[in-house]
Amino acid sequence: MLTGMQLIGQEKSIGHDDLVIYGENPATGEKLLPGYSGATIDQVRHACKLASDAFDAFRAQPEEKRAIFLEVCAEEIMLIGDQLIERAMAETGLPKARIEGERGRTCGQLKLFANVIRHGIHLDARIDPAQPERMPLPRSDLRMKNIPLGPVAVFGASNFPLAFSVAGGDTASALAAGCPVIVKAHSAHPGTSELVGQAIQRAVKRCNLPEGVFSLIYGSGRTIGTELVQNPAISAVGFTGSRSGGEALMKLAFNRETPIPVYAEMSASNPVFLMPNALQNRSASIAKGFVGSLNMGAGQFCTNPGLVIACKGDALNDFITTAELAMNETVAQTMLTSGIHAAYVEGINALKIHDSVVEIASGKPNLDKNLCQPKLFSTTAKSFLEDLSLQNEVFGASSLIVICDDLSEYKKVALALEGQLTITIQLDKEDVSEVSTLMPILEKKAGRILCNGFPTGVEVCHAMVHGGPYPSTSDSRTTSVGSSAINRFLRPVCYQDFPEELLHSSLQSSNPDSVPQLVDGKLNG
Amino acid sequence: MLTGMQLIGQEKSIGHDDLVIYGENPATGEKLLPGYSGATIDQVRHACKLASDAFDAFRAQPEEKRAIFLEVCAEEIMLIGDQLIERAMAETGLPKARIEGERGRTCGQLKLFANVIRHGIHLDARIDPAQPERMPLPRSDLRMKNIPLGPVAVFGASNFPLAFSVAGGDTASALAAGCPVIVKAHSAHPGTSELVGQAIQRAVKRCNLPEGVFSLIYGSGRTIGTELVQNPAISAVGFTGSRSGGEALMKLAFNRETPIPVYAEMSASNPVFLMPNALQNRSASIAKGFVGSLNMGAGQFCTNPGLVIACKGDALNDFITTAELAMNETVAQTMLTSGIHAAYVEGINALKIHDSVVEIASGKPNLDKNLCQPKLFSTTAKSFLEDLSLQNEVFGASSLIVICDDLSEYKKVALALEGQLTITIQLDKEDVSEVSTLMPILEKKAGRILCNGFPTGVEVCHAMVHGGPYPSTSDSRTTSVGSSAINRFLRPVCYQDFPEELLHSSLQSSNPDSVPQLVDGKLNG
Repeated sequence: MLTGMQLIGQEKSIGHDDLVIYGENPATGEKLLPGYSGATIDQVRHACKLASDAFDAFRAQPEEKRAIFLEVCAEEIMLIGDQLIERAMAETGLPKARIEGERGRTCGQLKLFANVIRHGIHLDARIDPAQPERMPLPRSDLRMKNIPLGPVAVFGASNFPLAFSVAGGDTASALAAGCPVIVKAHSAHPGTSELVGQAIQRAVKRCNLPEGVFSLIYGSGRTIGTELVQNPAISAVGFTGSRSGGEALMKLAFNRETPIPVYAEMSASNPVFLMPNALQNRSASIAKGFVGSLNMGAGQFCTNPGLVIACKGDALNDFITTAELAMNETVAQTMLTSGIHAAYVEGINALKIHDSVVEIASGKPNLDKNLCQPKLFSTTAKSFLEDLSLQNEVFGASSLIVICDDLSEYKKVALALEGQLTITIQLDKEDVSEVSTLMPILEKKAGRILCNGFPTGVEVCHAMVHGGPYPSTSDSRTTSVGSSAINRFLRPVCYQDFPEELLHSSLQSSNPDSVPQLVDGKLNG
Repeated sequence: MLTGMQLIGQEKSIGHDDLVIYGENPATGEKLLPGYSGATIDQVRHACKLASDAFDAFRAQPEEKRAIFLEVCAEEIMLIGDQLIERAMAETGLPKARIEGERGRTCGQLKLFANVIRHGIHLDARIDPAQPERMPLPRSDLRMKNIPLGPVAVFGASNFPLAFSVAGGDTASALAAGCPVIVKAHSAHPGTSELVGQAIQRAVKRCNLPEGVFSLIYGSGRTIGTELVQNPAISAVGFTGSRSGGEALMKLAFNRETPIPVYAEMSASNPVFLMPNALQNRSASIAKGFVGSLNMGAGQFCTNPGLVIACKGDALNDFITTAELAMNETVAQTMLTSGIHAAYVEGINALKIHDSVVEIASGKPNLDKNLCQPKLFSTTAKSFLEDLSLQNEVFGASSLIVICDDLSEYKKVALALEGQLTITIQLDKEDVSEVSTLMPILEKKAGRILCNGFPTGVEVCHAMVHGGPYPSTSDSRTTSVGSSAINRFLRPVCYQDFPEELLHSSLQSSNPDSVPQLVDGKLNG
C-alpha cells in the first residue's frame, strides 16, 4: 500500500517539507496519489545517523549473509506483483513489456551481485607472507583486502524507474560492497519508488539486519539532495541523470571538509561510425537497425545513438532513404515527463534553426500529450567541427548524421568528440585495417565500443563498462553497470603482522571460504 | 654530467624562467652547482605535446616490451654509480647507507612493476562470451580490459629523493600502466633529479620508445606546476608532499574543463595505540622500538609515529622513563632542507607553549645547521579531544603521547582521528578481545594497520597500502606504494562483438600471453 511517507530505517515517517511531490501520468497528465511531502533536514540527518550506526554491523556480516539479503530484496520486489508494474507504467508512460523486462533486469542485477560477493573477487585479497630471513631486512607479513567505503547516497534516474532507481545498480552494488544506502527518490516516479523501498525495508527486516542499512527519502535535489551529499556520514554518491545535476553534486562533494567520490553518469551522444564497406554492403539493414535503436523507449536511453558519422556518396544516400522510410513509420511514444518532453522539443528546435543543420526525416506527427516525434538531422563534418555544441546530447529520439568527405574526416570528428558512454562501429572485413587506426582514438573517448550492433541495451555482466571519459561520467575509472560497479564502493586496507584471529577470513592462510587470493603475486583463486 | 637543463623528450633544453634553482647542502648551507633555470610555459607545453604524441605508441607496446623498459631504467640508474649516491647525500644530508638502500628500493620497485605487467593481472581482462540462444534476448560477446589513462604529471617528494621522486613509485606505476610521465623535479634535489632523469632518458632511447614517454622539468610549483596540471594532455597527477600542496593540486585538477584524478599523499600522524597488557609486559622494549622509529631519518617519513595513545599508570611511566633515556641518547640528524627544519621548529614550539601539552623528553641538544632535535610531548585524552589540532602532523622527530584514563578513551581518541596512512597497535594475547572492538574504528581511519611493529618502513609488495582516508591522501581507494599503485592510472574499456583481430591479445579467447581472464565470472588465471 502506498503511504506517501519517507522510509527511514524500519519507520514510515511523514515528510514536513512544503514541497509535495505527486506522480503524474505523462500520457494523460493525471495526478497520481498519494502526495509525497519532502523530507525535512532533520529526517535526512536521522537517516544518515541510522546508516552510520548500521555500517559496522552490516559490513561485519559474512558475504554469504549479505548475498542472501540481496536475493531476498529481489524476491520481495517480485512479490509486489502487478501493482509495481501498473504503478510504474502509470508514472512513466512506458509499456508493460518494458517495465516487466526492467523488473527482471533489476532482480537479475541483485542476484548477480549476490554471486559476485559469494565468489569473493571483489575483496582483492592479497597475502605477502613474512620473510624473516630476508637480508638486509626481514619482511613483515602483509595482507590486504578491500573494505566498504561507508554509507552511500543514491540518486536514481528518471528513465529506468526500476533498474537505475531505488533498487538499481548503484544500490545493489553499494549494498553488495557492505555500504548502507540512502536513496533520494526520483520525483518522476514516487509511487514506484515507495513500492520498491518497502520491499527492501521488508528484506532488511527478514534478514535481521540493522535498520539503517536502507532508507528512502523524498524531496528536492537542491535542498534534500544537498543536505544528503554534505552529511559527514555519507562516503560516496551514485547518480544517474543530467550533466548539470551531476556536476552540482560533484561540486558539493568536492567542497566538503572531507571530499568524497561522486559516481555520476551524465550525458552522451553515443556516436555510430559507418565504415565505407559496411555502408556499401549493408546500408538498408544498418539503417533499419539504427532507426530501431534510436526510437527504443522514445530515445530515452543513456546510450541512445545521437550521432552518426558517415562518408558522403550513394551508399549514404541509400542509408538515408531507408532510414527516412523507417522513421516515417515510427509511432510516437510518450516521454517520461513533461519536463523531458519540453527539453526534447527545445533540443530539436535548436537543431532545426541551426544554419548548418538539415532536417531529413521525421516520425509520424502526433500532438498528443508528451509524445516524442523522432527526428533525424544531418550536417557536414566541417560544420560539426566548427560548432562542437552539435555533439551535445538531445535526450530523446533525435540523431544527427555527420557527413564526411573522406575517412580523414572520420578521424577529425573522432578526435573532437567529448567523452562518451559508447561508440559503435559498423564495419565489414574490408574496413578492418581502417578501423584499427581509428580504435586508439575511440578507446580514449568511450567506455564501451561496439562492433556491428547498436548501443542501446546494456548487458548486466562481468565485462560490461557503462561508464566513460568526462563528461559522459564523472569518473572514467568506473562502471555503473556490471559486476565491476562494486569496486566504486571499496577501498583497500593492509594488515601487517596480525594474528589470524584478528584477520577477516579472506585473509587467513587457511582461506576457509576459498576466495581468490593473490599470494606473493600469484593468484590461487 | 649535470647540465642544469630541462630534459624534454630526448632533448636537453635551457630553462628561461627567472627562477634559478640550486641544490643546497643542508648540513653546510653550501650552494650546489649547477643552477637550474625554471622551465618556461612553452617548455611545459612542449613536454605535454610530446607526451600526448607518445601515448598511443607507448601503450600499444606489448607488456613484455614495457617490462623490459622498466628494467632498463633500473639498470641505467645503477650505472650512474657513486655520483648518484654522492649527489643525493649532498642535497639531502641523508647518510650513505640510507641513500644506497633507497636506490635499491627504487630499482626493486621498477622491477616489481615489470613483473606485474608481465603477469597481466593489472589488465583485469574479462570475457563474457556471446549467448546467441539466450531467451528472451541473445547476449552479445562482451570483453573488458583496462587501458592507461594518458600522460601523468608527477610531483616528487622531498624526503625520498629516489624512491618517491623522478623514478619513484608514481613514475614507475604510471609507466608500467602505459602512461607517459612528466616529472616536475623537487627543488630540494635538482641534481639527483637530473641524474635519474638522464638515466630514464637513456632507457627510452635504448628501448626505441617515442621520446615523449618521459620528460623532466624544473620550476616553481605555483607557475610550472599549475600549467602542467591544467594542460589538457595531462590525465592524472601523482603527488607526495604537504597537505596544502596536495589540496592546491586537487583544486586545479577539479576546476579543469575535464577534471582529472589527483593522487596526493599528504599528511599523517600515524598513531600508535599501546594496549594495556602489551604496555604492562613490554614497556621497555616498546619504548626503545618507538624511539628508534621516531628518529629514523630525522623523523622525515610520511609514516613517522607522531601520536602515541596509552593508559595512565605505572606501565606508562616505565615506558616514558625508557623513552626519555633513549631520546637523551639520540644524536640529532640533519633535516632535508632549511624550510623543513624551520617548519619543524615552529611545530615543536607550538606544542611547547600549548597549555595542555608537557614536554617530556628531548634528544641531545645541538645547534648545528638544520639539525633535528627529537622531542617527545604528552597531553591528556581530554585535552586532545578538546583541541583536535593536536593531531596535526609535525614533520620531523616529534611525537605526542595522549594519556587516557581508561580504554573507553582509546575509542574516543580513535573516533576523533583524521584519516591516517597507518595506525599501529601494540598488543599482547590478553589484549586481543579489546583490540577486536577497536579494529572496526581503526579500519575506517587508516590504509594500513600494524600489529606489534612500528609504522616506518613501507614494504614494496603486492599487499601494501600506502594510502588512507582524507586528509592522509586525496583518494582512499588507492595506494601509492606496491603493485596496486598501477590501478590509479588505468580505466576499463568494454569491447562488444569485436572480431579477434581487432582485440588486444589479453582479450583473445586463445589467450596467447596466458594472462588472468575472468571468463563468465570465473578466473582462469
